[in-house]
Amino acid sequence: MANSSYAIGIDLGGTTVKGALVDRKGNILETFKVPSFADEGPDAVLNQIKSTIKSLMSHARSKKIKGVGIAAAGIVDQKTGVVKSPPNFKNWGSVPVGSILTQSIGLPVLVENDANAAAIAEAKFGSGKNFPDFLFIIWGTGVGGGIILDGKIFHGPYGGAGEVGHISIDYNGVPCKCGSRGCVEAYIGQKYLSKRVAKELLKHPKSKLTKYIDGELEPLHISLAAEEGDEFSKKVLIEAGNYLGYAIAGVMNTMDLRVTIIGGGVSAVGKFVYKAIQTTVKNYVLTPLKDGIIVLPAALGNDAGVLGAAGLIL
Amino acid sequence: MANSSYAIGIDLGGTTVKGALVDRKGNILETFKVPSFADEGPDAVLNQIKSTIKSLMSHARSKKIKGVGIAAAGIVDQKTGVVKSPPNFKNWGSVPVGSILTQSIGLPVLVENDANAAAIAEAKFGSGKNFPDFLFIIWGTGVGGGIILDGKIFHGPYGGAGEVGHISIDYNGVPCKCGSRGCVEAYIGQKYLSKRVAKELLKHPKSKLTKYIDGELEPLHISLAAEEGDEFSKKVLIEAGNYLGYAIAGVMNTMDLRVTIIGGGVSAVGKFVYKAIQTTVKNYVLTPLKDGIIVLPAALGNDAGVLGAAGLIL
Repeated sequence: MANSSYAIGIDLGGTTVKGALVDRKGNILETFKVPSFADEGPDAVLNQIKSTIKSLMSHARSKKIKGVGIAAAGIVDQKTGVVKSPPNFKNWGSVPVGSILTQSIGLPVLVENDANAAAIAEAKFGSGKNFPDFLFIIWGTGVGGGIILDGKIFHGPYGGAGEVGHISIDYNGVPCKCGSRGCVEAYIGQKYLSKRVAKELLKHPKSKLTKYIDGELEPLHISLAAEEGDEFSKKVLIEAGNYLGYAIAGVMNTMDLRVTIIGGGVSAVGKFVYKAIQTTVKNYVLTPLKDGIIVLPAALGNDAGVLGAAGLIL
Repeated sequence: MANSSYAIGIDLGGTTVKGALVDRKGNILETFKVPSFADEGPDAVLNQIKSTIKSLMSHARSKKIKGVGIAAAGIVDQKTGVVKSPPNFKNWGSVPVGSILTQSIGLPVLVENDANAAAIAEAKFGSGKNFPDFLFIIWGTGVGGGIILDGKIFHGPYGGAGEVGHISIDYNGVPCKCGSRGCVEAYIGQKYLSKRVAKELLKHPKSKLTKYIDGELEPLHISLAAEEGDEFSKKVLIEAGNYLGYAIAGVMNTMDLRVTIIGGGVSAVGKFVYKAIQTTVKNYVLTPLKDGIIVLPAALGNDAGVLGAAGLIL
C-alpha cells in the first residue's frame, strides 16, 4: 500500500492529550496518551503534544504521514491555527498552536474546535457517512455542536457557528452560566441535569434511581434505572430529550438540515432519549420541513476527537 | 449603454401581480400592476403574470432583457421553478410556474420564495450591500426569513431554510397556527400582536393608543402613540423587539452571522423596536459571537419583491 497516506489526530483535552495514527478509512493503527499539563501553561502543553506526535511518527516508520490535525477545546481560528481561552487551561490567552507545531514538526498542522472535529469524524467515518448534511450535537458536561454542509464543516462567516447548546428554548427560563436564559445546556448539560434530577428525586423516594445516588448522579444511572422500568427515570430522560428537541427544531427551522447525529457522554444513555428527541423535533418544525427528519446516535464514541482531528488532514 | 442588461422582476402576491423592469444597479425603469385573480385558479394567475411581463417587454423596446424572476409566496423549488400551495391561491396544488413561463415568454425564468427574494434584493441593492452574510427577516402578517451567505441565498440542503418565524422562543409558550408552541410569529406577527395589544389595552385606559382603535389596531398606531410618549405603547414595542431578538439570537448561535436586516410592514414601526432587538440579541448570544452584532432596517420597502425577483437574473 505504497500510495496510502496517514494522518496523526490529536485530541487536546483539559486532562489528557490523546493521539492516534489514522488511515484514510478511519482505522486507528496506533494510539498514544499523556497528561496535558493544562495547569502548567502553554509551553508544557505544547511539549506534551509534540512528544505525542513524535511517538506516533516513530511508530509510523515508513508510512507516509500527510499531516497532523488537532481537536482543541475553546475558540479556534481554523485559518490561523490559533486556540483562544480553552476552558481549564491556565495562563493560556491566545496561542498559535498550528504555526508553532508546524515549525517544530515539519508537517502541515490544522487545528479545529473539538465539537467540529467530532462532527467531521462522524461525517467521514461514522453515523454521518451517508448524509452529506447534518447537525452534530455533542452532549456531555456542556452541549456543543457542529454543522456539516455538503460533507464539510460549516464555520459560519466569523468561525463560531454551531453553538447550539446556547439556543434559548425559553426566553424566561433557567439561568445559564453563559449569562443568558433558557439555554438548552442549562437544562440538559450533565451537571445541570444531575443536580435537577437529584432535587426532584426527593419527591420520588420509591424510584429505583435512589439506589444509585451514593455520590454524584450520573446520566448512566438514570438510564440504568429507566431500563429496569423505573417510571421517574423514564420521565426524566424523555424530558431531557424533549428539551434537546426544542433546540434542534430551531436549527432545523433555520437551516432545514433534517438529520441530527448525537454524540458525547450523556448521549450514550440511549433509547428513551432518541425517540423523545425525534418526536419533539418533528412537532416543533414547520410542516414542509418535516419529511425525513431523523435523529441518530453517533458511532465513534471517545475516538471522535482523534478521528476528526485526523480527518482534517485526510 | 448597448452592453447594459435588464431583468423583469415579478412579485406574485395573493391580491396583486407587481412587475418591474430593473437595471443592473437596481433602478426601476418601469412598473406594471394587475390583480392576481388568485381565486380563479392557476391559468388565470399565469395569464396575469404573462400580460405583466409582455407589457414590461414592450416598454423595454430595444433594451436587452436577460430574463424574468418571480418572487412567489408558498413553497418554491428553485431548481424546477415549481410553486406549491401558496396561501390564498385557490385550486393551486403544485404548479411548474418556471417552465410554463419560459416556454410562453421565450426568456429564462427563475422562481424564488418571496422572503428569499426580498433578502436577495437587500443583498444586491439595499441595506445588505456591504454585508456578504446576514439574516434577513420579513416581519408582517407572518414572520419569514432569508439567509444570505457570501452574497448568495442559503436554501439549505432541502430548499426550505430561513423559517425563522417558527423558531420557538418558549417551548411551553403560546400556540401557533402551524401547530407548534412559542413560535416567534405567534408573538409578533401582525394579527397576533394587534390582538394581544388590544386585549392588554383594556388595562391601560389612559394610553394614547386608545384613540387609534376605531377599527383594527395596526402596528403603525402603536408606533405613533409611542412617538407621542405613550409609555404603554413603548413597552409593547420593546417587548415585541425582545421577542424577535430571542429568535434571532438562536440563529446567531447556530450560524454566527452577526448582521440582521429587518423588512416587512411591521418593521417600519421604527426606532424603539430596533434598539430592543439588538440589545436582546446581544444578551442571548454566546460571548465569543457578540462582536459586531448589528440589527438594521431594510432599505427597499415594498419594492423588495420585484427587485429581488429581478436580482435572481441580474
